[in-house]
Amino acid sequence: MSENGLHVAVVGATGAVGQQMLATLEKRDFPIGKLTLLSSARSAGKKVSFKGQEYEVQEATPESFEGVQIALFSAGGSVSKQFAPEAVKRGAIVVDNTSAYRMDPNVPLVVPEVNEEDIKLHNGIIANPNCSTIQMVVALEPIRQAFGLDKVVVSTYQAVSGAGAAAIDELKTQAQAILNGEEFTPEILPVGGDKKHYQIAFNAIPQIDKFQDNGFTFEEMKMINETKKIMHMPELSVAATCVRLPVVTGHSESVYIEINKQGVSAQEVKSLLSTAPGVVLQDDPENQVYPMPADAVGKNDTFVGRIRKDLDKDTGFHLWVVSDNLLKGAAWNSVQIAESLLKLGLVK
Amino acid sequence: MSENGLHVAVVGATGAVGQQMLATLEKRDFPIGKLTLLSSARSAGKKVSFKGQEYEVQEATPESFEGVQIALFSAGGSVSKQFAPEAVKRGAIVVDNTSAYRMDPNVPLVVPEVNEEDIKLHNGIIANPNCSTIQMVVALEPIRQAFGLDKVVVSTYQAVSGAGAAAIDELKTQAQAILNGEEFTPEILPVGGDKKHYQIAFNAIPQIDKFQDNGFTFEEMKMINETKKIMHMPELSVAATCVRLPVVTGHSESVYIEINKQGVSAQEVKSLLSTAPGVVLQDDPENQVYPMPADAVGKNDTFVGRIRKDLDKDTGFHLWVVSDNLLKGAAWNSVQIAESLLKLGLVK
Repeated sequence: MSENGLHVAVVGATGAVGQQMLATLEKRDFPIGKLTLLSSARSAGKKVSFKGQEYEVQEATPESFEGVQIALFSAGGSVSKQFAPEAVKRGAIVVDNTSAYRMDPNVPLVVPEVNEEDIKLHNGIIANPNCSTIQMVVALEPIRQAFGLDKVVVSTYQAVSGAGAAAIDELKTQAQAILNGEEFTPEILPVGGDKKHYQIAFNAIPQIDKFQDNGFTFEEMKMINETKKIMHMPELSVAATCVRLPVVTGHSESVYIEINKQGVSAQEVKSLLSTAPGVVLQDDPENQVYPMPADAVGKNDTFVGRIRKDLDKDTGFHLWVVSDNLLKGAAWNSVQIAESLLKLGLVK
Repeated sequence: MSENGLHVAVVGATGAVGQQMLATLEKRDFPIGKLTLLSSARSAGKKVSFKGQEYEVQEATPESFEGVQIALFSAGGSVSKQFAPEAVKRGAIVVDNTSAYRMDPNVPLVVPEVNEEDIKLHNGIIANPNCSTIQMVVALEPIRQAFGLDKVVVSTYQAVSGAGAAAIDELKTQAQAILNGEEFTPEILPVGGDKKHYQIAFNAIPQIDKFQDNGFTFEEMKMINETKKIMHMPELSVAATCVRLPVVTGHSESVYIEINKQGVSAQEVKSLLSTAPGVVLQDDPENQVYPMPADAVGKNDTFVGRIRKDLDKDTGFHLWVVSDNLLKGAAWNSVQIAESLLKLGLVK
C-alpha cells in the first residue's frame, strides 16, 4: 500500500450495487489513496460523491486500469468479460460481482466467512457469488463444520432490487397503479431480456433469470453450483426454487437441510449459529422474533431464525435466512473480499 | 330434496369467505329452495344479495337451524363450536370451514378430488381443510396414486386475504403509506390476536397463526396433520414453513416431494397432472408459462407448474402450486363438498 492508501477502481459506479459499494467503502473507511470511478459509455459523465468529494464517472477503457490495485466490478457480465482481463494485465486484482467468472476453475469464488483462504489461489480475478447463494452458505457453513451436510433444498423469496434500479421503479409504479385501480404494462420483470413480462406488485413470480433446458432457471443453477464450489462439496445435494416477490430489498430463504450426524437438537444448531461469523441469530418464537427483509435492509449481517428440527427425520432441519441482497449479497461481500486481500497481505 | 331445492344456511355470510361462498353457490346454480344467512351478533342486520335478491343477515341462534339441510360455516372456530352441534341436532349436515373439528377423529376432513368417499363417514359435521393444505393435496394425490409418496417439504407464499378483510385493508393502506413516505403502525398481521404486529407491505413475514412449543406455527402443523389425515397417510413425512406475503389473494407453494418409485421422469409427472381432477397444468418454461397468484384469482382450479426432477435424488421432484385461497382454499371446496353430498345421495 502506498502511504496514502490503495488505488481502487469501481466499475459500474452508478448502478444499484455500485452505489452500495461506494457507501460500504466509505463506511468501512477502506484505505483508499486514489479512487477511479468507471462505467459503460451510457453512464459516463454522471457525478457521484464519495467522502464528501464529487467524482465524474468515466467510460471504462483498458487504459483506465493503469496503476489500479483493486478493481471492484459490478457493471454486468459483458463489461467484466471485456475489462477484467485488461485490469489484471495492468496489475490490478479484480473482485467481480457478475456471473462472468464464477464457475471458472481458475477463479476463486469467495464468501470470506466460508472460504477466505481460497483468495490466495487467485490469478488476478476473484468472483463474488450470486446474492442468494452468499447468505445461504454463511448460514450453512458453521453447520457443515460441526455436523456435516448431506442435502439442501431451498425456496427463495427474492427482492426486486436484485434485478436493478429499473425493477425497483417498476414495482413501485405498478403498486401505485393497482392501488389507484389504473392499468399498467409490465416491462421489466421477471427478466429484462426475456420474452414476457409479468405483474410483480401484489404477486409472486417463480422465475429469476432465464430457464435452462433442464427446467431450472439460471438463478437456481447458480445457487446449486456456486454452493458446491464455495463449500468445496461437489457431492452435496442441492436444489433450489427461486421466486421473485414484491419486496424492494432483502432476500429471504426457506432452507431444508439434512446434516450428517444423528441426535443433534435444534437448540444445538441455534447455539452454533449464535456465535457464527457474519450471522445474527433471531430466533425467539415466543416473542415473535424471526428475520424479515424489512428489518435486514442496510445491514451487513445474515439473519437466521425459525430453526426447527424436522418432525420425522432426525438429521433434518429447517431454517429461515434473510439478508440485504445489495450488501452481503453484493457490495459488502465484495468489499469484504478486498479487506481480506489486505489482511492476507495479497495487496501492498 | 324438496321440489324447490334445499334449505341451505351460510354462517358468516358477511365475511371474506362467506361472500365467496354465496358467489360460488350462485355461479354453480346450487339447488337452493330456501337460503338462511347467519352471522355473529356483530354483523347481524347487514344486507347481502344473492341471485338479485336482498337478504338481511340474522344473528345465529340454535333455532336458526330448524329445517336447515346443509349449513356452511365460516364464522370462526368458536361460532362453529357453539352452533355446529345445534345445527346437527336439528338434522342439518354441517360443512365447517374453520379448524374447530378438522382433527376430530369422528369428523371427515374432505377435499373431494382426494377423499370424497370419506364424506359417507360423517356424523353430521364434515370439515373443510386449511386453505394451504387443500391446494397441496389436490396436486399430490394423483402423484401418490401413481407413484406413492414418502416425503413432502413445503414452503408457502401466502396471501393476506387468508387473514380476513382487515388484513387486506392493512396491506393496501400500508403499501400506500410506504409509497407516500408516510409513517404507519401495523395492527393486524401477522396474527390479529398475537402480541406483536409487523409491516407486511414490501415485506415477508415467516409467521402464520401463533407458534406452538415445538417451534412450528399452528398453520404449519395444520398443513402437516391435515395432509396426513386427508391422504390417509399417518406415516407420511411432511414439513412446512408458512410465510405471509404482500399478495392480496392467491397462495403459492414451493413443494419438494420424494415419491416411492424409481426412474420416474418429470414428463411423467406432468402428463399425470395434466389430466388430474381439479388441476390445471401450467408448465412451459420455454414460453415462461407457470402459475402465479395474480392469474389464479377468481378461479376454482389448482394450478401446478415448475415441475422438475431433483438433480441428485432419483425419487425427488419439485413443484410450484398456486390456487385462490378464498375459492379452492375455502368457499369452493365447501360448496364442492355440498355438491358431493347431493351426488352421493346423502342429502335428499
